[in-house]
Amino acid sequence: MRTSYAVGVDVGGTRIAVGLVERKGRIVKDAKVLTPKGGPFAVVDAIIALIEEAAAGVHPSELAGVGIGLPAQIDFLRQSIEFCTNLPLAGVDVRALVMSRLKHQVTIDNDGNLAALGESRYGAAQGIHDFLMITLGTGVGGGMFFDGQPYRGSRGLGGEVGHMVIQLDGPPCPCGGTGHIESYLGRPAIAVRGKEVGATYRGKAILDQAGGDVDTITAEDVIKAAQAGDESATEILMSAGVVLGRALVGFVNLLNPQMIVVGGGVGEAAPFMVERASEIVAEEALAGRRDVKFVQAELGNDAGILGAAALAFDDYEAREGLHR
Amino acid sequence: MRTSYAVGVDVGGTRIAVGLVERKGRIVKDAKVLTPKGGPFAVVDAIIALIEEAAAGVHPSELAGVGIGLPAQIDFLRQSIEFCTNLPLAGVDVRALVMSRLKHQVTIDNDGNLAALGESRYGAAQGIHDFLMITLGTGVGGGMFFDGQPYRGSRGLGGEVGHMVIQLDGPPCPCGGTGHIESYLGRPAIAVRGKEVGATYRGKAILDQAGGDVDTITAEDVIKAAQAGDESATEILMSAGVVLGRALVGFVNLLNPQMIVVGGGVGEAAPFMVERASEIVAEEALAGRRDVKFVQAELGNDAGILGAAALAFDDYEAREGLHR
Repeated sequence: MRTSYAVGVDVGGTRIAVGLVERKGRIVKDAKVLTPKGGPFAVVDAIIALIEEAAAGVHPSELAGVGIGLPAQIDFLRQSIEFCTNLPLAGVDVRALVMSRLKHQVTIDNDGNLAALGESRYGAAQGIHDFLMITLGTGVGGGMFFDGQPYRGSRGLGGEVGHMVIQLDGPPCPCGGTGHIESYLGRPAIAVRGKEVGATYRGKAILDQAGGDVDTITAEDVIKAAQAGDESATEILMSAGVVLGRALVGFVNLLNPQMIVVGGGVGEAAPFMVERASEIVAEEALAGRRDVKFVQAELGNDAGILGAAALAFDDYEAREGLHR
Repeated sequence: MRTSYAVGVDVGGTRIAVGLVERKGRIVKDAKVLTPKGGPFAVVDAIIALIEEAAAGVHPSELAGVGIGLPAQIDFLRQSIEFCTNLPLAGVDVRALVMSRLKHQVTIDNDGNLAALGESRYGAAQGIHDFLMITLGTGVGGGMFFDGQPYRGSRGLGGEVGHMVIQLDGPPCPCGGTGHIESYLGRPAIAVRGKEVGATYRGKAILDQAGGDVDTITAEDVIKAAQAGDESATEILMSAGVVLGRALVGFVNLLNPQMIVVGGGVGEAAPFMVERASEIVAEEALAGRRDVKFVQAELGNDAGILGAAALAFDDYEAREGLHR
């Protein structure tokens, strides 16, 4: 029997969102809560409550399963959480804990991989066999599709697009390394530049966004000032666009993708940054530059839920295939 | 009928080598010539003469075909040469020219991809499903295996391991970009450091290798001085090992490989450089650092011939599969 629904869960450092998703990608019901701060089991309890809420009234035979996206490095084969910066979930067997309380099949994956899977199934990368997704937010992540399939590396720990060295003597990265792509393009890095400029006469528009207090300037303040036409804020994001472009030169030379999908809150708010990056790639990359199309992600805030649901549908198909 | 032999051709900027290779990887006959300087057709003529020499006495039904490795960006699907730094072959249809003169099937590929294919079939990466090969020579190249298959990107232009940005404000790269891995680890970059140090009192051992003339110091002089125990020369290569390690941190985080194979003349001559790189990866990479094994390439100078022969055997199998 062909199931009609999957539950997709998008676990973030700030909030957890859930959706009941139809096979074609329509979200028929959704809900979200702030991520509990009370340790791993509080987070798992919140996930379980949201899944129950989303699946209420759906007959078990109609539900393909549950997919959960986490901001973590995940051993996809073992379904274990190896490393997690923003939540206390490393070593916590989220899948087993959820499955012990609910009757549904559960599969977990890294949120960047799921954003790529979501865009492939329901968004900007439908029908594209070889692409790279880069998500620009508080962290920088992403995922890859090769030959029409998600590629996660030998154990599923790959796709850490933001953690490649782009400057040997660069600033520290939240992961513990230095000079990584994330240390230039994550929200904290953009906020640092915003504070530097906001402390000078050229940064008045940025400072105004933060209510006049330099110390509270955020990446969003820079983005809003740029969107309102401020030159200094635009310059900060254009410089970030150059760094993004230089990073993407490497990905184009290494992977020769047909498409680069840029998503995440920062990526979606600053299309001119992506435009600048694509110009850099056209100038500096080798022959593969002619193959690559730059697009914005299409799924926005729903990317996590839709990617997680797509994973649950895929996992259901794989199980059915094995049982046949 | 199962063929017994393939011809592998390894075209380099300095020399062209050919081998008649048995299916299990034994080279039963080989030959080489200096690469002619008289333009594209002189190079193609030399390739044809070498293939004729290698295939002489082999019955056509015993020969799977000819593989040719080139130091070029190749559109693998179209079998066309898109970009070639060291030889005047961009836009030259080498495959068609050779096939018009000889009766054998011919397939061309990038030399880095073929080095990876050779190590996978006959060398250090046998049985390894997910690995990255990096070749350190005059240029820096390489190839990738994902899920047990070579991955060349959407059109076959990928695998340009040496052309990822590792320093935003780095030195020029022969490809036209700046701050690429090759601009730190290629022979010319090591020679520049050798000249800098060779001009000081600390560089006597390096200078001696070059016969006392600073301007003629090469990467090989630095390597030889280091192999003889000179501290300054060793320092240059250890610094290169740090850069190599920082580059590999990114590859481990992105691709989560089981193995990194280091080859090429420079990589093979300086194992302590590779050792230093593996230490950096163990310190800085994310969870995938525990999965990755560092090994030296095993095929040495035969890598090009053996990889090209493996390609010819694979291509023969694919054709036979289609005809069945």
